Amino acid sequence: MFITCLDLEGVLAPEIWIEFAAARNLPELNITTRDEPDYDKLMKFRLDVLKKNNLGLKEIQETIAEMDLLPGAKDFLDELRSFTQVIIISDTFTQFANPLMDKLAWPTIMCNELIVGPDGIITGYRMRIHDSKVSTVKALQAMGYDTIAAGDSYNDVGMIKESKGGFLFRSTEGIKKENPDIPAIETYDELLAGIKSIMNE
Amino acid sequence: MFITCLDLEGVLAPEIWIEFAAARNLPELNITTRDEPDYDKLMKFRLDVLKKNNLGLKEIQETIAEMDLLPGAKDFLDELRSFTQVIIISDTFTQFANPLMDKLAWPTIMCNELIVGPDGIITGYRMRIHDSKVSTVKALQAMGYDTIAAGDSYNDVGMIKESKGGFLFRSTEGIKKENPDIPAIETYDELLAGIKSIMNE
Repeated sequence: MFITCLDLEGVLAPEIWIEFAAARNLPELNITTRDEPDYDKLMKFRLDVLKKNNLGLKEIQETIAEMDLLPGAKDFLDELRSFTQVIIISDTFTQFANPLMDKLAWPTIMCNELIVGPDGIITGYRMRIHDSKVSTVKALQAMGYDTIAAGDSYNDVGMIKESKGGFLFRSTEGIKKENPDIPAIETYDELLAGIKSIMNE
Repeated sequence: MFITCLDLEGVLAPEIWIEFAAARNLPELNITTRDEPDYDKLMKFRLDVLKKNNLGLKEIQETIAEMDLLPGAKDFLDELRSFTQVIIISDTFTQFANPLMDKLAWPTIMCNELIVGPDGIITGYRMRIHDSKVSTVKALQAMGYDTIAAGDSYNDVGMIKESKGGFLFRSTEGIKKENPDIPAIETYDELLAGIKSIMNE
């Protein structure tokens, strides 16, 4: 039995922090996991920028509420969910993800949680589990599933390699070059066909 | 972080085999896990009855396509999914569940799989994992989740006891008496309130 594990940002939705950086004209928030591999360091820097600018959860959620999904993402996910189980595995936070999940018709998402003060300022965050993408895929396998995974970023490579099959979706040239053994694709049609092909092997 | 694990039949939808027994006037298919605790024995008996009556997957799916969800089930699940992650854990089969998942707007379901011959006759079945409800709840906990569980039947008691909190939903007097430590409730409003209360503890 199969379950497909999808990254969120870059696969179904734009990068939340990048959109927020543009909406608030805060170019220092343009750095992502692609630039700073130490997630804890990156998050502390981001929360510091927010605090200095007196911006809280409410302001980020306003940006997310106005964000569109990537074109075709909803139709792709609807089609995928009709023939296999799907879980979105993301390093984002439930409080950011919820407005996007609403737009995607509430697929299951496994991510992390922000700690928010009574004044709406984000004071910290709670990571669900260490090395969450690989750990989650391994737990799904312990449930009796074969996993199939897709994502665009460095932190997706582990869950893809751990799975029966997987894809780099609209990834960078650097990541593709470093992982020539992972099929790199650009469209939802290719992704649907690729997932079906692994399921029918 | 919380994830709610729901039984399907008896909680969101009627018992599939009971509905099929009525639709095809086959009273011998009225026995369920409530009467026969040995699931393997029960399934072999059911498949035997189907074969003798020349009934296959197509005929059961026709019944399921005409089945209604339990009244209020869709609204309940929509509301639940808006504030917590939800997974349906069921001993049914993907081929039975799919038409019901369509009516429920495609929540994630973890169940089992039928083996179907080219003539549409069900020749066997593949259980995803041993003791699937408890095993699945434990794997979700290994992912970093606190689980909350609800179900109506003997095979739900284990996952409820294994969880941070849980409920017997519209269960039998016998099961309720044998499990006085598990809150027994009858309505979706009580279930929503109960889940919220555990999350806010």
